[in-house]
Amino acid sequence: MKASVHFVGAGPGAPDLITMRGWRALREADVVLYDSLVDSDLLDGLRGERIFVGKRCGRHALTQEEINELLLRLALDGRQIVRLKGGDPSVLGRVAEEALHLAAHGVTFEIVPGVSSATSVPSLVGIPLTHRGCADGFSVVSAHPRDGHEPRSIPPHHPRRTLVLLMAGATVREWTADLVRLGYPDDLPLAFISAACTPKQRVVVTTVACAADDFEAADLATPVLAVVGQVVLLRPLLAGKPAEPELAHFTEPARTAHLEPAKDRFELDSAW
Amino acid sequence: MKASVHFVGAGPGAPDLITMRGWRALREADVVLYDSLVDSDLLDGLRGERIFVGKRCGRHALTQEEINELLLRLALDGRQIVRLKGGDPSVLGRVAEEALHLAAHGVTFEIVPGVSSATSVPSLVGIPLTHRGCADGFSVVSAHPRDGHEPRSIPPHHPRRTLVLLMAGATVREWTADLVRLGYPDDLPLAFISAACTPKQRVVVTTVACAADDFEAADLATPVLAVVGQVVLLRPLLAGKPAEPELAHFTEPARTAHLEPAKDRFELDSAW
Repeated sequence: MKASVHFVGAGPGAPDLITMRGWRALREADVVLYDSLVDSDLLDGLRGERIFVGKRCGRHALTQEEINELLLRLALDGRQIVRLKGGDPSVLGRVAEEALHLAAHGVTFEIVPGVSSATSVPSLVGIPLTHRGCADGFSVVSAHPRDGHEPRSIPPHHPRRTLVLLMAGATVREWTADLVRLGYPDDLPLAFISAACTPKQRVVVTTVACAADDFEAADLATPVLAVVGQVVLLRPLLAGKPAEPELAHFTEPARTAHLEPAKDRFELDSAW
Repeated sequence: MKASVHFVGAGPGAPDLITMRGWRALREADVVLYDSLVDSDLLDGLRGERIFVGKRCGRHALTQEEINELLLRLALDGRQIVRLKGGDPSVLGRVAEEALHLAAHGVTFEIVPGVSSATSVPSLVGIPLTHRGCADGFSVVSAHPRDGHEPRSIPPHHPRRTLVLLMAGATVREWTADLVRLGYPDDLPLAFISAACTPKQRVVVTTVACAADDFEAADLATPVLAVVGQVVLLRPLLAGKPAEPELAHFTEPARTAHLEPAKDRFELDSAW
């Protein structure tokens, strides 16, 4: 039996980074409910109705409960629905909240994984999350402050683990203080990537100690992702093109002396 | 200028979970170098030459150095090459090693992100890595032992962070001992997913304390991925179908009493 609702990950923003399975579901859908992080090119020319349910100018078009109810009502009407979410629906995408609501009412659904922004946005600007001899693991954490003042779930520093912070733009001074408290060295490389896969994309390479000041000076567009770890040093070698002009703003010698790639650190003969 | 070499992530195994960008590169390639985790359906009907460079029956067809050299030689011959890797090339995929070798010789390349197995394999069996009020972050770590006896880079337990172990099948007794030492509770849910996206796929749900025994009893096919955390409890609600028969093998009351979904844990009103 075909599912009534397909939760589809749109990928990091470039329309051709959707999966073939996701694209097929999108073309066949009667209705597409989409968020603000979805590229409009993906929606052009679809046969189905399109309903925006995301956040714009800081305001939600619909609350989560309203989205849950709308999904359910459309599904009970017998329509084929795609719920299109930026990145991967299971990585900070609230897919389970919506799916549990459908399941509780007997509506069938399928989750179509997408390319997560957490892994792909760094890779697209020349920063692989792992690299043999440098990092054999990574953590992905929401930088968004939680109600109830619970601390963020950032893990302590480990020299072989990269850290990715999503929704990193709102509270840089807070979470960089968390990093210092958690043992992340002051001079550990840190990259901000803003508005990935859009014409406004910018990359700022700095360090844990300088991150908050450099972030404020750079005045970056949202969304902002941060990558923390030695893998950031690979970018000049892997970005595939000269560094963006805006990077030059952050190249005072004091800040970038340690950013010279130390190649020998990466040339280990050990296997994973 | 078009890149000579495209590093393409094939996704978790199902051929239609490749991205549209990756699929286009694959169809246009003169030569495709592929690994053992790539589904053969993806390779059928391609116009380009196909060269297997992965590991079969525990033996590498080519060493990493030989792959680097072959890529470089083919690129210098002026051929359009796709280097196809399971999952995402930048998640334990050694993409930077091969790309750095090309960069050092002036060969252009492009990295086309794929759907990482780390995020998608759990999601495809009903386990989202994050869920509001339950987990707002996750870590992905190689379970493969390293030369030099360095400890694995597994982070300490955090109640709101899911853990994913890749290449988890070879050393279960070792890394579950690591988990206990790192504060992971004995009764924390743990799922093994083996041979994902193949007809041999199996899911075994157990706990940190019982994982090693249950893993040995289950005799799972490789590759094996493990997910550790409360999100595993969502699977009965999100898998979209009744639990697999083999799961019954692990449903002695003593082991599964705690696996009943505790819904109230997930119904928090806090925002990310």
